[in-house]
Amino acid sequence: MEQFKYIHGGDLHKTEKEHGISLDKILDYSSNINPLGIPEEIVNIIKNNIDKLKMYPDAHCRELIKEISKYLDVSLEHIIVGNGAIEVIFLYLFSIRPKKILLPIPTFSEYENIAEMLKIDVDFIETFEDNGFLFSYQLISKKMTEEIEALILCNPNNPTSTLIREKDLKKIIKEAGQKNIRVMIDETFIELTSGGNENSIVKFIKENDNVFVVRAFTKLFSIPGLRLGYGIGCKSIIQKMWKRKACWSVNTFASLAGSVLNNDREYLKKTDKWLTNELVWFFEELKKIPGFKIFKPETNFILIKILDERFNSKILKSKMAEKGILIRDAENFRGLNNRYIRVALKDRKSNESFLKNLKEVMR
Amino acid sequence: MEQFKYIHGGDLHKTEKEHGISLDKILDYSSNINPLGIPEEIVNIIKNNIDKLKMYPDAHCRELIKEISKYLDVSLEHIIVGNGAIEVIFLYLFSIRPKKILLPIPTFSEYENIAEMLKIDVDFIETFEDNGFLFSYQLISKKMTEEIEALILCNPNNPTSTLIREKDLKKIIKEAGQKNIRVMIDETFIELTSGGNENSIVKFIKENDNVFVVRAFTKLFSIPGLRLGYGIGCKSIIQKMWKRKACWSVNTFASLAGSVLNNDREYLKKTDKWLTNELVWFFEELKKIPGFKIFKPETNFILIKILDERFNSKILKSKMAEKGILIRDAENFRGLNNRYIRVALKDRKSNESFLKNLKEVMR
Repeated sequence: MEQFKYIHGGDLHKTEKEHGISLDKILDYSSNINPLGIPEEIVNIIKNNIDKLKMYPDAHCRELIKEISKYLDVSLEHIIVGNGAIEVIFLYLFSIRPKKILLPIPTFSEYENIAEMLKIDVDFIETFEDNGFLFSYQLISKKMTEEIEALILCNPNNPTSTLIREKDLKKIIKEAGQKNIRVMIDETFIELTSGGNENSIVKFIKENDNVFVVRAFTKLFSIPGLRLGYGIGCKSIIQKMWKRKACWSVNTFASLAGSVLNNDREYLKKTDKWLTNELVWFFEELKKIPGFKIFKPETNFILIKILDERFNSKILKSKMAEKGILIRDAENFRGLNNRYIRVALKDRKSNESFLKNLKEVMR
Repeated sequence: MEQFKYIHGGDLHKTEKEHGISLDKILDYSSNINPLGIPEEIVNIIKNNIDKLKMYPDAHCRELIKEISKYLDVSLEHIIVGNGAIEVIFLYLFSIRPKKILLPIPTFSEYENIAEMLKIDVDFIETFEDNGFLFSYQLISKKMTEEIEALILCNPNNPTSTLIREKDLKKIIKEAGQKNIRVMIDETFIELTSGGNENSIVKFIKENDNVFVVRAFTKLFSIPGLRLGYGIGCKSIIQKMWKRKACWSVNTFASLAGSVLNNDREYLKKTDKWLTNELVWFFEELKKIPGFKIFKPETNFILIKILDERFNSKILKSKMAEKGILIRDAENFRGLNNRYIRVALKDRKSNESFLKNLKEVMR
């Protein structure tokens, strides 16, 4: 079908077909999901509430918003929820309707897709391999000209796994504020950085009306199939977004899942422990394999440049797929090319299997 | 919260709070859901696929579209799916971007809401109580002027429970085609009319590029909480819609639910039997209660005018809520006023209880 347009990680359905590997046999290193699996709390919520599907979900998601409010210590009026982070990002841009936005690249492609859909011009800011693809404050500052109405930052950034520290972020936000520029920060991976919510800008929302933060349950709680994102911003933007939000866009199970934020601290602790141990180890092990440049990761995925000239991203993806491992060909990220791949961080056993297979392919 | 904007039937969450009745004790006559309950097939799909939530859903919903294709005998390229019918309606209007549309009233309020959001002008066509709120072909024809780019019809219509017959619909579509006007027909209740899919215009899609049909799983399969709608139209409009559709907007469970269309014919038969028996009986019983004008229903809900001057829609809603029964105050439908309520059709036992309580209130 010509309409097949989405190119993201995690398209196991395509891999299943092309390589004839059954869905549950694929080791998916292309999507960046917490390998601890779905929290027991969410599994139980689903099992115990199937009968509730015969009622409309609460269109205002009152309980869900209360849980988010408690989790992040922000008041109810600062919160919107959506059918995945994608709906939240769409609603934000649909509500503020900027003529032109600023977007450092490479980054998550949906910002650009949504902007195009809404006929918003995008001014891209390049980042550079030599500098580990770090966002340059100077460059962003220079590009924040009069015609720019909003700046979009993914933090930590997908696919580079870089993190803008609080100090720098505050500088950008301050300057943007002075220039009347809104800043949207996509923190969908923030809980999967070392320090977690401490790296978040949510605590400064109250003093910075120009900041909007996107969050999601997806990656942290390993539930991309459930679709649940949310956003934190000043009251006026949140009201505008509610006004434009499609009724009942958050399904019943998602609307009930909020309690996991506050009831399953154990899961969050375990996640933190796994991340702290595994990320450094996996990074160091990857560095030992010749033929690659490995970029230092700040969250649960790693950007890799293929130096070995026998391979490009497509060939490597195909070779790994033959072994039942799906990696993310990063060629279609604007600002990258067919030398780049992205791999997720999983549990030790999977990571060992991944390393073994990658070594075999590279031999 | 000021952002609470949705006023539809089925807001049990509000009723629960205001009247202190627990959610599962409320007899909900305000939303029009098949009382046969959730098909076993869907319950099993959910129970058996909770673990799949940790993968992204298939963004292209390949299996779901195959099932719809088989169910309605239309080819894959004519089908789009969405997070409830609402996303499908939004995507349609967002894709064709008409300057002005024609909308007979009273009808489902989301057409107008979405049009407003997209800054589309709406020209309303009044229908009249004396005529049972039937759409007048003459009036629609007269209103299809040069500046109109699309006509929206809800068939059967919510909240009036009227049905435009095939002959009339074809006449409207033909004239619209000649005048270069697109026609969107919302058939979300069509399977709950006597004759079901036979009343659908889907079979004429191939010859009528100007027609787009909206459908949903919601009402028929009693799963408003799952969020699953779809649309059938010409290839070019379907392609435009896919291009604008948010990635992964259909959640994993919804994307797997399509098989119910083809595997559970028994459920469809039972539904048909219930509807045929119950609708006439309920209509006749309602007519026996003094103080009302009951409009002849064609689908699983009934519009009622309150003639008794002691009551209006708000008072009656409140009195019924005290008895644990939620009815739809129809005042906020454009074209109606505080003399109108809408009630759903349920199983015999519930309907008897409803009638008994209504009689008590009206005494």
